[in-house]
Amino acid sequence: MAASFTLAQLAKHCSIEYTGAADTCIDKVATLISADADALSFLANPIYHKDLANTRAGIVILSADKLGDYRGAALISDNPQLDYARIANLIYQGSRPQAFIHPQASIDPDTTIGNGVCIAAGVVVEAGVSIGNDCRIDANATLCHGVNLGERVIIHSGAVIGADGFGLAFDQDHWVKIPQLGSVIIGDDCEIGANTTIDRGAIEDTVLENDVRLDNLVQIAHNVKIGAHTAMAGCVGVAGSTTIGKYCMIAGASGIGGHIEIADHVTITAMSMVTQSILEPGHYGSGVEAQPHADWRKNLARLRRLDKTIKKLLLRKRDK
Amino acid sequence: MAASFTLAQLAKHCSIEYTGAADTCIDKVATLISADADALSFLANPIYHKDLANTRAGIVILSADKLGDYRGAALISDNPQLDYARIANLIYQGSRPQAFIHPQASIDPDTTIGNGVCIAAGVVVEAGVSIGNDCRIDANATLCHGVNLGERVIIHSGAVIGADGFGLAFDQDHWVKIPQLGSVIIGDDCEIGANTTIDRGAIEDTVLENDVRLDNLVQIAHNVKIGAHTAMAGCVGVAGSTTIGKYCMIAGASGIGGHIEIADHVTITAMSMVTQSILEPGHYGSGVEAQPHADWRKNLARLRRLDKTIKKLLLRKRDK
Amino acid sequence: MAASFTLAQLAKHCSIEYTGAADTCIDKVATLISADADALSFLANPIYHKDLANTRAGIVILSADKLGDYRGAALISDNPQLDYARIANLIYQGSRPQAFIHPQASIDPDTTIGNGVCIAAGVVVEAGVSIGNDCRIDANATLCHGVNLGERVIIHSGAVIGADGFGLAFDQDHWVKIPQLGSVIIGDDCEIGANTTIDRGAIEDTVLENDVRLDNLVQIAHNVKIGAHTAMAGCVGVAGSTTIGKYCMIAGASGIGGHIEIADHVTITAMSMVTQSILEPGHYGSGVEAQPHADWRKNLARLRRLDKTIKKLLLRKRDK
Repeated sequence: MAASFTLAQLAKHCSIEYTGAADTCIDKVATLISADADALSFLANPIYHKDLANTRAGIVILSADKLGDYRGAALISDNPQLDYARIANLIYQGSRPQAFIHPQASIDPDTTIGNGVCIAAGVVVEAGVSIGNDCRIDANATLCHGVNLGERVIIHSGAVIGADGFGLAFDQDHWVKIPQLGSVIIGDDCEIGANTTIDRGAIEDTVLENDVRLDNLVQIAHNVKIGAHTAMAGCVGVAGSTTIGKYCMIAGASGIGGHIEIADHVTITAMSMVTQSILEPGHYGSGVEAQPHADWRKNLARLRRLDKTIKKLLLRKRDK
Repeated sequence: MAASFTLAQLAKHCSIEYTGAADTCIDKVATLISADADALSFLANPIYHKDLANTRAGIVILSADKLGDYRGAALISDNPQLDYARIANLIYQGSRPQAFIHPQASIDPDTTIGNGVCIAAGVVVEAGVSIGNDCRIDANATLCHGVNLGERVIIHSGAVIGADGFGLAFDQDHWVKIPQLGSVIIGDDCEIGANTTIDRGAIEDTVLENDVRLDNLVQIAHNVKIGAHTAMAGCVGVAGSTTIGKYCMIAGASGIGGHIEIADHVTITAMSMVTQSILEPGHYGSGVEAQPHADWRKNLARLRRLDKTIKKLLLRKRDK
Repeated sequence: MAASFTLAQLAKHCSIEYTGAADTCIDKVATLISADADALSFLANPIYHKDLANTRAGIVILSADKLGDYRGAALISDNPQLDYARIANLIYQGSRPQAFIHPQASIDPDTTIGNGVCIAAGVVVEAGVSIGNDCRIDANATLCHGVNLGERVIIHSGAVIGADGFGLAFDQDHWVKIPQLGSVIIGDDCEIGANTTIDRGAIEDTVLENDVRLDNLVQIAHNVKIGAHTAMAGCVGVAGSTTIGKYCMIAGASGIGGHIEIADHVTITAMSMVTQSILEPGHYGSGVEAQPHADWRKNLARLRRLDKTIKKLLLRKRDK
């Protein structure tokens, strides 16, 4: 499935320098620790630096400052992860599926489907959906009526795009459902993770701009707007009518409240809760790291009466 | 798809007062900011009050205290969101799907299906399932064997009703699966969000009373009982054998522990953890709001040794 | 469906003692509170001890120390939940489905499927998948290309095994997708909950050893390794390349960070966040329990300036 490439070819492909024999040849990728002479590997995360000395990889991508005593063939990269991605895409491009619509997908006749689209088994595409060129819709995903995808969008298995938003009005003693009349608009190059859900807007649309990347089990509520190039890790939830800027990074299991605004270039650390607008770029968080449970119980007991304790401490001082 | 209505007709439909020309006509809904003269809009959330002055909406629903200088046609409502819901349901009722069972749904012959039921493509309905009148089961949802739905229930795409509960007994060095013999009973007018999961009971049933509303990606474990009219936002998890009262509101991403009891009219704020029974109505919470990460790191470091620090502070006082 | 058994037969089956008439007969299971004379019940969780005095169960499984004044037929067990599981499996074994592949499942011809496998409607099994003997794949689950299941694995409805990991490299102003070339290897006797997602590895495989038990809506990222007999409750997320030991217990809605190591026999309490390796067995946690919201608001306000307040308190002391 994979083709073979020389060190010189790969360096040229990535427009980067190399060291070692120009005709060193690889035809696959592997981790530093398991690579053999036919494999390309890379060093990006410093915790794997220890594996460099003993790797048998044919070629390693690394940054100049990590070259050190390494004697093997190497590609010198300012961003080894990126050049790895470029080369892996080059080597394995032949393994990409051809355009097809699986006979066990359910496609409403009233849909617009671009060229080069792959739709897997079990996918449901309802009426009025538009799918741009070169999209890939994986098994058992659902595109509800009227949803609109740009080009090169990947919808992973089980994702649900365009279910009704959670809109309810309370009438004395029961709930009345508010019709959800908007749709979902997803820009070019977006990727939506497995079993992730993106609800249709109540009146206007829920919108993901280009190159938004959502991991698995993410919940995007109605009328959320997500700016281009923003990425969210698994299990994040975003409540309704919130606007998130471009180039944001939301780490796993964080929750973003409704009707707020997050600026461009905001990073939220894992398991944090954001309920107020964030208008300045930067890192924000509130996740609490685990510690031995016996210690945590004591700290938590203090936290639960923190206001009283600190008041007491501050007051006693003043008494003196 | 939508019909046209006059201001007077709408006021009568909602049994509320109006101001402006009785024959003002609308045939759609829109937000204040994007409405034109053919559209009805509403003002409920005060953060959108700023849009009222410049709206071109034909009719606006608002409360008397917000009327102020507004000169347009208006419906005067004690609950603008509710009257909006009533009117939107009126205008768009013609767009509701007719009863149908999609040929690419999988329906076991041993099932009971009421009148007016809509079952979309990819839905699986297993043996022994009972579906009441006017239910709607969206694409790729699963109703496992023996599950029982009341009337007018909406199951959104990808939801799984009646998977086995997570029941395991530990036998020296491995797990033994405990058969999950109960079912899931869902009352009238319930709505179950996309990719939400509700497990069958271990011995008795998991029960949702009437008008329970669950958002997307909610997890309801085996033998949970949820009282009528209770609503849960996205990503909430409820552990096994817990009983939740009527008219509760559980905000997003909260977790409710197992084998506890929550009274009626309890509100849980977002990302809170409830592990003890709550026997009094009211608001409860433990979600921690994000702040700039540099500040949070320092506060978190203090939190992790809070007990020791406070002990030291309290003790030193006594020493003096 | 269920067969009938005597007290003596059940005691022999479990290799435990009994008290009462050896020919006491039951043919079903029930809770203490709802059981009748034909039913077996059990007492494991002490919160149900109150129901023992009034139960009408034909046979009760309980520990010797709970026998007290109880006069009914009883099985004396060191682990009532386990013996209940054994007996329930015995009574209801006839209700297990025969091997079948539902005609509305989509099975790629290039797959290996063992004996005794049950595949429900709406399941998608892609090319290169291998399914061991006696596995059960429930409705609308997805096994992506190349995924490998051991024997007796249960995949619940809507689970997605083998979607692409969330691998992205940043290229100046946009994301480049990193091909996800590994697979998912699931050992014998694993159980994967409804709508749970397990991503394929980036280069090597994501691996679950034997007897791993995952509840619903769990997210396992690429290249995670989970040791044998480890169990995770609902809504847990594990980030990429993390290794979790054997016999761990991760309570609901906890988050485990990426590239870390968790030792064997580690228990994480509910809604905790683990971002550093845990190298010693034991209990760890950081979940914050809810309290009345008015109290929590005050405590949270203190928490958000905890470092400054404690610094002030400590400094003032030194000044004296």
